[in-house]
Amino acid sequence: MHHLKIAVVGLGRMGKRHVHTLLYRVPKAQVVAVCSTDPHEVKWATENPEYREFGIKVYHNYDEMLEQPGLQAVWISTSTDVHSSQSLAAIGKSIHVLCEKPLSIDIAEAQSVVDAANENPHLKVMAGFSRRFDASYRNAGEKIYQKKAIGSPFMVRSNTCDLLDETGFFVRYAARNGGIFVDCAIHDIDLSLWYLNNPVPKACWAAGTLQHHPELKALSDVDNAVGIVEFWGGKIAYFYCSRTQAHGHDVCTEITGTDGKLMVNVVPQQNNVVLADKLGMRHEVQPEYWQRFQDAFALEANEFVESVLKDTPVPVKLETGITVMKIGQGLQHALLTGEVVRFNESGERLK
Amino acid sequence: MHHLKIAVVGLGRMGKRHVHTLLYRVPKAQVVAVCSTDPHEVKWATENPEYREFGIKVYHNYDEMLEQPGLQAVWISTSTDVHSSQSLAAIGKSIHVLCEKPLSIDIAEAQSVVDAANENPHLKVMAGFSRRFDASYRNAGEKIYQKKAIGSPFMVRSNTCDLLDETGFFVRYAARNGGIFVDCAIHDIDLSLWYLNNPVPKACWAAGTLQHHPELKALSDVDNAVGIVEFWGGKIAYFYCSRTQAHGHDVCTEITGTDGKLMVNVVPQQNNVVLADKLGMRHEVQPEYWQRFQDAFALEANEFVESVLKDTPVPVKLETGITVMKIGQGLQHALLTGEVVRFNESGERLK
Amino acid sequence: MHHLKIAVVGLGRMGKRHVHTLLYRVPKAQVVAVCSTDPHEVKWATENPEYREFGIKVYHNYDEMLEQPGLQAVWISTSTDVHSSQSLAAIGKSIHVLCEKPLSIDIAEAQSVVDAANENPHLKVMAGFSRRFDASYRNAGEKIYQKKAIGSPFMVRSNTCDLLDETGFFVRYAARNGGIFVDCAIHDIDLSLWYLNNPVPKACWAAGTLQHHPELKALSDVDNAVGIVEFWGGKIAYFYCSRTQAHGHDVCTEITGTDGKLMVNVVPQQNNVVLADKLGMRHEVQPEYWQRFQDAFALEANEFVESVLKDTPVPVKLETGITVMKIGQGLQHALLTGEVVRFNESGERLK
Amino acid sequence: MHHLKIAVVGLGRMGKRHVHTLLYRVPKAQVVAVCSTDPHEVKWATENPEYREFGIKVYHNYDEMLEQPGLQAVWISTSTDVHSSQSLAAIGKSIHVLCEKPLSIDIAEAQSVVDAANENPHLKVMAGFSRRFDASYRNAGEKIYQKKAIGSPFMVRSNTCDLLDETGFFVRYAARNGGIFVDCAIHDIDLSLWYLNNPVPKACWAAGTLQHHPELKALSDVDNAVGIVEFWGGKIAYFYCSRTQAHGHDVCTEITGTDGKLMVNVVPQQNNVVLADKLGMRHEVQPEYWQRFQDAFALEANEFVESVLKDTPVPVKLETGITVMKIGQGLQHALLTGEVVRFNESGERLK
Repeated sequence: MHHLKIAVVGLGRMGKRHVHTLLYRVPKAQVVAVCSTDPHEVKWATENPEYREFGIKVYHNYDEMLEQPGLQAVWISTSTDVHSSQSLAAIGKSIHVLCEKPLSIDIAEAQSVVDAANENPHLKVMAGFSRRFDASYRNAGEKIYQKKAIGSPFMVRSNTCDLLDETGFFVRYAARNGGIFVDCAIHDIDLSLWYLNNPVPKACWAAGTLQHHPELKALSDVDNAVGIVEFWGGKIAYFYCSRTQAHGHDVCTEITGTDGKLMVNVVPQQNNVVLADKLGMRHEVQPEYWQRFQDAFALEANEFVESVLKDTPVPVKLETGITVMKIGQGLQHALLTGEVVRFNESGERLK
Repeated sequence: MHHLKIAVVGLGRMGKRHVHTLLYRVPKAQVVAVCSTDPHEVKWATENPEYREFGIKVYHNYDEMLEQPGLQAVWISTSTDVHSSQSLAAIGKSIHVLCEKPLSIDIAEAQSVVDAANENPHLKVMAGFSRRFDASYRNAGEKIYQKKAIGSPFMVRSNTCDLLDETGFFVRYAARNGGIFVDCAIHDIDLSLWYLNNPVPKACWAAGTLQHHPELKALSDVDNAVGIVEFWGGKIAYFYCSRTQAHGHDVCTEITGTDGKLMVNVVPQQNNVVLADKLGMRHEVQPEYWQRFQDAFALEANEFVESVLKDTPVPVKLETGITVMKIGQGLQHALLTGEVVRFNESGERLK
Repeated sequence: MHHLKIAVVGLGRMGKRHVHTLLYRVPKAQVVAVCSTDPHEVKWATENPEYREFGIKVYHNYDEMLEQPGLQAVWISTSTDVHSSQSLAAIGKSIHVLCEKPLSIDIAEAQSVVDAANENPHLKVMAGFSRRFDASYRNAGEKIYQKKAIGSPFMVRSNTCDLLDETGFFVRYAARNGGIFVDCAIHDIDLSLWYLNNPVPKACWAAGTLQHHPELKALSDVDNAVGIVEFWGGKIAYFYCSRTQAHGHDVCTEITGTDGKLMVNVVPQQNNVVLADKLGMRHEVQPEYWQRFQDAFALEANEFVESVLKDTPVPVKLETGITVMKIGQGLQHALLTGEVVRFNESGERLK
Repeated sequence: MHHLKIAVVGLGRMGKRHVHTLLYRVPKAQVVAVCSTDPHEVKWATENPEYREFGIKVYHNYDEMLEQPGLQAVWISTSTDVHSSQSLAAIGKSIHVLCEKPLSIDIAEAQSVVDAANENPHLKVMAGFSRRFDASYRNAGEKIYQKKAIGSPFMVRSNTCDLLDETGFFVRYAARNGGIFVDCAIHDIDLSLWYLNNPVPKACWAAGTLQHHPELKALSDVDNAVGIVEFWGGKIAYFYCSRTQAHGHDVCTEITGTDGKLMVNVVPQQNNVVLADKLGMRHEVQPEYWQRFQDAFALEANEFVESVLKDTPVPVKLETGITVMKIGQGLQHALLTGEVVRFNESGERLK
């Protein structure tokens, strides 16, 4: 059987999980290499018996890794600042790319990846909008578009609320990725575009607050924020992002239409267990995105691999990410300035 | 406006609540008297400013109270052993009766009240099967009988599970009222008769255990028990009764039919509040029957008062209680002997 | 016993329910009169056997009604435009006032009622912020302020979403009461002030859409809107108001704090019944505010009556309504202009 | 890397899924063969491009398949009547066995497999009690045994309720596997032994009914049944099995202890989506065991493969199945005869 020979670049929390997904959930992929510039990660990978058992080669230099004979695809899960250069390098070597979102926090740079992909139609280049592969979000999409279950959808509410990071490390790191609306709400914005049928932004506003991480002030960021996006044509989305939830990773989405409302994960549950005791009845909540979305990552990887092996279109268009970024940056600008950010009917931001 | 002049006999936990219901929720009733043989209760009532304010006369002698001029009805909420004699005494004085269930733990005695009521058709005599007045149970009944929402119902599961009584006082008291299946499951049995369209019992079996109240052994009772009742015609009900729940008063009922299932209060909730914190997401549960059923008591009282004032039939037939008692006693017998209790096709218990 | 002699003015949907509440749930009140200027309502009341039975006098002239000997209090449930004049008239006659919110859509006018009340400290004057009397909202308040269950609260999300009014009548009527944020979000704004400990508004923005009621355009209103209010001190509230829900009256509130989150009625339920059938598992939702809040209205009326009879402070300060109105009008202004509305640190709106 | 070479015998609904699990979720296994005596299944497998792609050899003769060079393990998912002979044949060839439950409906035969396994300690022989690998059931076990979350557990309620099989085919087939309590409740009985710490049965009784499949009468079976098992030492379990649910595969378990209750899947949900529309709020339910337990099957397979590769004990003891069968057959006997079935203190059934 033909396996897709794939490498994972970046071995942080997410990169390690991507390797695991490829090993355990994607039988048509073969992980042939991993790469990290962090010496600790390289050491960890080199000494990992499972990696050895599966024959995974460990690199500390990305360009070197791209030269490995037979390598067909890379899954880029490094920090955002190198997403586009690494994507472009792989494309330059005729290697397929699955890149973590966002392609870049600089829209021109992101566009350069889209352009390169368009110029290389034999390559599959996809951004990892993983929620598009979640069973519940897909079911919601099917109910909206195939079943017409809620009539015409016009309003999306979507939250990405992370468990409090006591150390603050992750949060400071994320602030460097473009701020809370770019790092945290990117999936929510993407969902709103999906469910509202690719509307064009008209105006947005946001407000935020610092509750646990005062150090974010210096980074021009907040740890909790809400924002509204008004689209041309009478559609609206609004978002709540938080870095400071006490109870877990709370990610929910509601889509309201003319005939009904869909609620996705409004009451998050770690599993099917409820404990009834002196405190009442309670259930646990997933601590992070992984417990909520690991099946989605597996499906994403399988579908990407299929699209390469069968030369079919990638399941999520690369261009999607550009609009998402425009909106995310608009919200972040509104958050920082207190001003309304407006867009023309083509979705270009007005001054 | 014409008010029904009513008295409440018995001023335990329940009697006091009945007075409150009549005062606050039943505008067409006027509480004119209360009665208790317990000196502490008499003292408490005599000194109660609200009772004084509302002009309620306090008696320690039931027969004396029955002589109060103008008295039209009594609500009997004493211990079970005097239910039938007090009912008969009131009927003898042409006074309407709303009597707590059961009429008696002796079926012949209970039957004597039914007979007396039948001989006095101008009087309203009703047993307090309060769940028949609960909005959710009524809605379930409507879905079954009017909406045919579950096709033909054939299976009932019903629980009455009380919060652990740390003192054990209430439980020992209840054991004297005929044991766990008579005291605790009486409403569940009643509900199974309602939702299964008055089926006739064929056989029953039960098993129980002592977990918190070993002192019940001497009273031939248990603190947790399950039982199955098979009815003639392929219908089945099964019950779980408990005196020892950690989380609250957990009373639920499921009715399964050929086309669906109805679930009543399978996840009990004290109110609409959920707290999300480090322990997950939790809600509180009603501590006792009162928080769950106070609206039902109010409706029961209003409907009873209406039936008297307008001379219409009482909303729950008095005879219902007789079959309920036969089944409850059958289950209790099975529990104590370990033997199957069987009934003929008329519902008479076989030896 | 001493009853408070009270009259209800306005016999629309709400006025009739207030009469019912007073008759059935407030034993220390006696409804002695009702008043309406609508001939149909007057006719309906005159012919109502229950009103006759309870001895309620029917007026078509408010001033005449105020002259009824012995009248002690009025419950004003007319349209908003006469709230303040009727309140002032009652105060002028030394009659206690329970007035539906808002006192006026003109803040100066509302302030004149507050001033009159302050000048007449022997009178109880209260605005009907009924949610303050709801068991779940009170429980949330207790968890926040007494139990410190969520640490320091900083974010409120609150929705008032009405069932679609097929006729559109009610909605057009409501638009005349100040627009969607004034009519619909007033309780949500009030709740945010309560749970965020009376914060001062700093800025707000809103966006709306017309989905079912295009006729609202002429009235400068929308049928669905979201808005954000930023308060001084890093607190935020955001609201969703809708006139067009398919599934019922969906009113929920979430309060997020530094240590947890409280969710009130996030999954609304008409009763405790769930039906499992070919469509899955479902429960019904309250069709309107009445099913959700009737207990709150009863408690509100009882507490108001108590405060008069015992001469204690009214449970909700009259001044509350003034800030609520300022915010509601700010949101409505933002909705109509697309501009951010800003307030100084005293909560005065800036130009 | 060393893969476990495994074959799947039986290519019915379940066998096909086991192949899929091994291919997609068990990277350390390599499916080298499948086998079926059904010509349609053989044809289907032979023509299956995926099987070809993964290099799976297709047999119609089990003994021939056992001779395939390098074969190390079989997953037996044939009909129950050949489970033990196929297990014994594999053991005879020194091949590891993962066998679907039950080993046999004849206890002596099942015991012969247990004996053979004990005589071949170098082989891993495991029965597929798949719920033992479900994340929620494991979490419940952890809460009971590690966290002591419910004190001492004494009562288990467990349901296995299947979606109505309109054709009746599956149900007739299942009746041949020992009847409803053997085929359907076997997992529930297993769970009760797990959570009640391996109690010994004392007595049991059951009642059943025919609601959709009258043809089962001829096979001495029913389509809905409830049963109670009393254990020595005051522990109790009770079960509801159904073949006729309208809403889906409804499998739930409650464990009550002295300090609390655990509820597993009491409200089953297909995914995280809720639809709010004119019918209220609803969610879908899994149509069959696969959607509920596919992750458990994957974990079961991975843990079995690990135990072979690392020569560690299998995660579920083979002996467990013997007691489960004794109880299942006792319940089935009670169901058919109407008599109580009793066991001595060693768990031997009494006549």
